[in-house]
Amino acid sequence: MLALTMGDPAGIGGEIAVKAWQALRQSGPQFMMLDDPARLAAFGVPVRVVRSAAEAGNAFASAMPVLPIPLSCPVIPGQPDARNAAAVIASIEQAVRLVQDGQARAVVTNPIAKHVLYAAGFQHPGHTEFLGVLTGASLPVMMLANRFLRVVPVTVHVSLREALARLNTRLIVEHGRIVADSLRRFGIASPRLGVAGLNPHAGEGGAMGSEEADIILPAIQALRAEGIAVTGPYPPDTMFTPEARAGYDAALCMYHDQALIPLKTLDMASGVNITLGLPIVRTSPDHGTAFDIAGQGLADASSLIAALRMADEMTR
Amino acid sequence: MLALTMGDPAGIGGEIAVKAWQALRQSGPQFMMLDDPARLAAFGVPVRVVRSAAEAGNAFASAMPVLPIPLSCPVIPGQPDARNAAAVIASIEQAVRLVQDGQARAVVTNPIAKHVLYAAGFQHPGHTEFLGVLTGASLPVMMLANRFLRVVPVTVHVSLREALARLNTRLIVEHGRIVADSLRRFGIASPRLGVAGLNPHAGEGGAMGSEEADIILPAIQALRAEGIAVTGPYPPDTMFTPEARAGYDAALCMYHDQALIPLKTLDMASGVNITLGLPIVRTSPDHGTAFDIAGQGLADASSLIAALRMADEMTR
Repeated sequence: MLALTMGDPAGIGGEIAVKAWQALRQSGPQFMMLDDPARLAAFGVPVRVVRSAAEAGNAFASAMPVLPIPLSCPVIPGQPDARNAAAVIASIEQAVRLVQDGQARAVVTNPIAKHVLYAAGFQHPGHTEFLGVLTGASLPVMMLANRFLRVVPVTVHVSLREALARLNTRLIVEHGRIVADSLRRFGIASPRLGVAGLNPHAGEGGAMGSEEADIILPAIQALRAEGIAVTGPYPPDTMFTPEARAGYDAALCMYHDQALIPLKTLDMASGVNITLGLPIVRTSPDHGTAFDIAGQGLADASSLIAALRMADEMTR
Repeated sequence: MLALTMGDPAGIGGEIAVKAWQALRQSGPQFMMLDDPARLAAFGVPVRVVRSAAEAGNAFASAMPVLPIPLSCPVIPGQPDARNAAAVIASIEQAVRLVQDGQARAVVTNPIAKHVLYAAGFQHPGHTEFLGVLTGASLPVMMLANRFLRVVPVTVHVSLREALARLNTRLIVEHGRIVADSLRRFGIASPRLGVAGLNPHAGEGGAMGSEEADIILPAIQALRAEGIAVTGPYPPDTMFTPEARAGYDAALCMYHDQALIPLKTLDMASGVNITLGLPIVRTSPDHGTAFDIAGQGLADASSLIAALRMADEMTR
């Protein structure tokens, strides 16, 4: 059993959850949702209110199992309302608790809108950091994966200028260690990490930037000293070709778009976000709330389905 | 007739030129090389020393036409020698002169190694800037194209830190104007430019950087005021999917790897570098000297052949 959160109810989370249940009701993996049952029933599927994972498992083939979290005000698709933020947050907290209690094997999260939660007093930079606090993890690490590639950005949701300011050897080493450890736990006995340079041509021997020599190479050496198979720093523009990808199991990237551009260019629909470094498994779809298309029946559930399958595989 | 330069003779230029001649000798496009005839003959193909484009045209089907530029010392593959730098530079100068004299229609350049030329006193930052000086162009602009995508980085061979420092509205406007003008001359009546943001999620309304509002949006508005069809700034990670690419003819990118990562990830082999903003047409393969594989017969001529075909099509 997997625990699937509500996400922002004005986004596409409910719609893709319903579509995922329709796709998976026979085959599994089974999931239970932490959401408002009435608003899910409005999508026209059978919904079963449950109180435990066992009840959810019995219901799954015939109705979408929902552990109820009541909303404070009606949902208008595309128009998030801070009055529902408490329910959004409670859904995440209860999903984590289900895993900590041993009822669920992993948490899968629907997209939230950070600015809506901030308006309601939410104190965490984002979803991942909040899960870190709930589970006592010091450095949650974001890995994105699709059928072509696994990428891990060492800086994430900060401006490019700020990403440059934050980049340091310790940050790269800590990420590399967590990634290698996680890949081992997911069944890759000797994970190989490919580390990207920061600058064009990986600095071309210092002609276009010194971060490769000053920051990145020392991190590679430190990780190697711990017995991890690490190569790089690679010129960023040629490290995502099929030939180059064959040389590593995950690419350690220096900033958000260095990781996300190749991933989404290769395949947008099937991307899964996996949080490493937590004591629990958490995956999520690789897209946002999509307020602009919410409530129109247009949302693509592929990424959520991939996230549910990935969470299932990682916890077998 | 196209004029093909020597490039660094210790790189793969000679080998891919020979392979390109073998591939194109019957079909064309025809080219003449500006190189040392003896070193090309050593690849085992018939070589014809010529003095004019007319002679080259007569020879092309039966022998590789070469306008002779003698080297100063023997070539050791993979080991560039600054004593040959004068010949490398003369090859570029004479190729440009052939076009300026009306003998050749376009210049196609083989890869050079900048540091070798610097050691011999070369004063220009790179190939493209040197061509700008030779032809009196104020702002040569690098466009890279393959069968999926055209990209134009507004900053190129500088560190990422320096790219951030150099980014300004005027630079984006000047690049956008040259790109739109060039695409029109290449047969796209109403070119559409897609402009990338700089930061993750294009700054997400200022939460992750202000360059989109401060620098990029004013440039988009200025280009629109000139009647150019421009959209953006787009979140960089989702603007290279097939659906997004259908919305523009060229992507204007803020730094080297933002442009080159998607291009090379989609297709490494067939990329062509096209210099815009020159009074002559110049293309080149989208790779370097590849000293590491020079002299082994392993080099892939696809990109050079694509560059020759592109130069031919652009000057019909």
